[in-house]
Amino acid sequence: MERVYFDHCRSTFVDKRVIEEMNIWMTEKYWAPAPFTSTGTEIQEAIEEAQAVWASFFGGKPDEVQFAPSEVVASNITIRGVVESYWKKHDTMPHIITTEIEAGSTVLSVLRKLEKGKLAEVTYLKVDENGLVSPDDVKNAIKDNTAMVVMADVNFMVGTVQDVTAIGKAIKEKKEDVMFVIDATRSLGRTPRWKYADFADVVYTDAHRIHGPKGSSVLWIKGGASISPIIWGSVTYFKITQEKPNVPVIRGGMKALQILLEDYEGKYEKMKNLQKMLFDGMLERIPEVQINGPWPKYRSPSNVCVTFKYIEGEAVQMYFDMNGITVDTGSACANPFLQANHVILALYNDYARAHGSIRLILSWYNTEEDVNRFLDVAPEVVKTLRRISPVAPEIYKK
Amino acid sequence: MERVYFDHCRSTFVDKRVIEEMNIWMTEKYWAPAPFTSTGTEIQEAIEEAQAVWASFFGGKPDEVQFAPSEVVASNITIRGVVESYWKKHDTMPHIITTEIEAGSTVLSVLRKLEKGKLAEVTYLKVDENGLVSPDDVKNAIKDNTAMVVMADVNFMVGTVQDVTAIGKAIKEKKEDVMFVIDATRSLGRTPRWKYADFADVVYTDAHRIHGPKGSSVLWIKGGASISPIIWGSVTYFKITQEKPNVPVIRGGMKALQILLEDYEGKYEKMKNLQKMLFDGMLERIPEVQINGPWPKYRSPSNVCVTFKYIEGEAVQMYFDMNGITVDTGSACANPFLQANHVILALYNDYARAHGSIRLILSWYNTEEDVNRFLDVAPEVVKTLRRISPVAPEIYKK
Repeated sequence: MERVYFDHCRSTFVDKRVIEEMNIWMTEKYWAPAPFTSTGTEIQEAIEEAQAVWASFFGGKPDEVQFAPSEVVASNITIRGVVESYWKKHDTMPHIITTEIEAGSTVLSVLRKLEKGKLAEVTYLKVDENGLVSPDDVKNAIKDNTAMVVMADVNFMVGTVQDVTAIGKAIKEKKEDVMFVIDATRSLGRTPRWKYADFADVVYTDAHRIHGPKGSSVLWIKGGASISPIIWGSVTYFKITQEKPNVPVIRGGMKALQILLEDYEGKYEKMKNLQKMLFDGMLERIPEVQINGPWPKYRSPSNVCVTFKYIEGEAVQMYFDMNGITVDTGSACANPFLQANHVILALYNDYARAHGSIRLILSWYNTEEDVNRFLDVAPEVVKTLRRISPVAPEIYKK
Repeated sequence: MERVYFDHCRSTFVDKRVIEEMNIWMTEKYWAPAPFTSTGTEIQEAIEEAQAVWASFFGGKPDEVQFAPSEVVASNITIRGVVESYWKKHDTMPHIITTEIEAGSTVLSVLRKLEKGKLAEVTYLKVDENGLVSPDDVKNAIKDNTAMVVMADVNFMVGTVQDVTAIGKAIKEKKEDVMFVIDATRSLGRTPRWKYADFADVVYTDAHRIHGPKGSSVLWIKGGASISPIIWGSVTYFKITQEKPNVPVIRGGMKALQILLEDYEGKYEKMKNLQKMLFDGMLERIPEVQINGPWPKYRSPSNVCVTFKYIEGEAVQMYFDMNGITVDTGSACANPFLQANHVILALYNDYARAHGSIRLILSWYNTEEDVNRFLDVAPEVVKTLRRISPVAPEIYKK
């Protein structure tokens, strides 16, 4: 039986049409860009077309789009680039506003290092029980030395969709030159269809979660936004990322975005239906299920995160895996730092709930059949694990 | 007619077997690595196998191999990581030794920024008329605060193969803790078959010039070598590069290396023969050809760099392109800084020679037919351009 895959935050299969596109630039038109040759100019045009497709998605201009080789590098370039640019202009420590529920590898790791190195001070805003940050809180946190507000538009763990329009407006009302930077690495195709240029100054994302190739990271930097290069390479193509263009990956990422945009609403609605089936089905078939994060409002349609009380997330993950179903967990043991998921803790301050959490991230390629397989297996998995759990009530032991 | 391609320093086609390998990890086993699932452990093993293959090539241990998302990032991580680690230990400015003929995007751009930021002092060693740096000069340049010697083992422009064994020995004789760092981004498969661990402490390279995918960058860091992470991301997989594994690209790079190693000597000899045909053929058929760089000794078999006197490199490049042949140039106009190639200048201090230079980088997939096509076209290209050149002697005007 084919595997049922619900871990689209960590990896996705690459769409066949994306692979076909990449193959053109890996085997036929594998040349380097260059101004003086027919082959080289064809490559330059191919890169420019990709910039134009992304620009139209963000609502910006093609030359505001630059490519980066990974989302880790993209987040470093963006956040540290703003910080470095601020130091150059002001010669004083910049202040950064973020939330307490950001992702580790694309926001928190950078901010913590900046704090530790005394390169920036950071305010971690509290969120409410839905994971929402209040535009007023953002506004009130802005100080004279605030350089940027950086956050994900969709939370990676519990799927909260932030009110970025209101937050963007609040920022500019308070202080025009504070940059609003969006970590959209995990939210492509998982937000309402908005134009980033309407509220943000900088966005970084990657097509690998929309069935594009890994490494297809993209920065959109509104004209005039100040970012100093923090990777020093070639300024020939992209002045801020300083990368040489990885043409097959750039084209693959573009193709993945084009496929997404073919029927954005349809894909969105499809995930929404599957998500409802999953939440309703679990609540109906399994006792003591805790939904983590907002529901049904404020939630991205791709995110399903729950805790089955009294059992550990990684045991649940293992049992689903043995049944041919891939899910992820926010449990400590699956985390290299052996820390419970900080998002669940921020929302509920409940270690058991964090350790017991599992997360499904849907794709529009998931099917009702996938969901039914999950719902058929889940009650038995939970029953088995509760039977052997030292903390489960007696009622689950027979 | 199929294009004849001699620009394998800037880009190579990706081998079909590499693409097949990548497709496995893009479409079938596209999962993320994880310790608690069957799928996740299979991915972890796939990454570890790739580390082992590279380790055996370098002569090191598998856990000394880390993957980076691009060679620009790899060079930044390595060079700046050594510098940062030195500052932490000594709280004084480190000294770096390099040569005046290194590549811009993977050595010079980083060193110049370090100097400008007062983060390191740099000695740029002179090279002789063959492009060789003397081991004695390296030794004599080492000071109390020297942290590393960094250079390419094969020069990107004129193909000089440095005597890295003697240089490595000289360094360690003078000062054991000076790191010898090799930029091998352009030399994979283009050196005699040596083991890097015999002379170097750190090597960075990329499989995209041996018909692997772009972005398949690899660092080998000898156990104990001190490199502080300069990109802040996830420490789960690779503590220094802090990247999340790009499995298809890691596997594609591994496959490209395996194919190279299948018959390293055969590929080496094949390029050597084609190189000789090219040099001999040009000298025989075209008057006033200047060979740039060493010949026949000290030269990598993949490198052919010449200047046809009295004409400009980018014009030559254009005319070859119109004849279906791709070559590169060291001319200023093809350079974003409008600077003549610094390597040719270092060797000959001759601007006309630098402006007129063209470079062919061979692959083992090039054929005698490719070479013959080039040699058939070349005399006519040169003749045509000299006829219209304002600086060519009268003899070429008829």
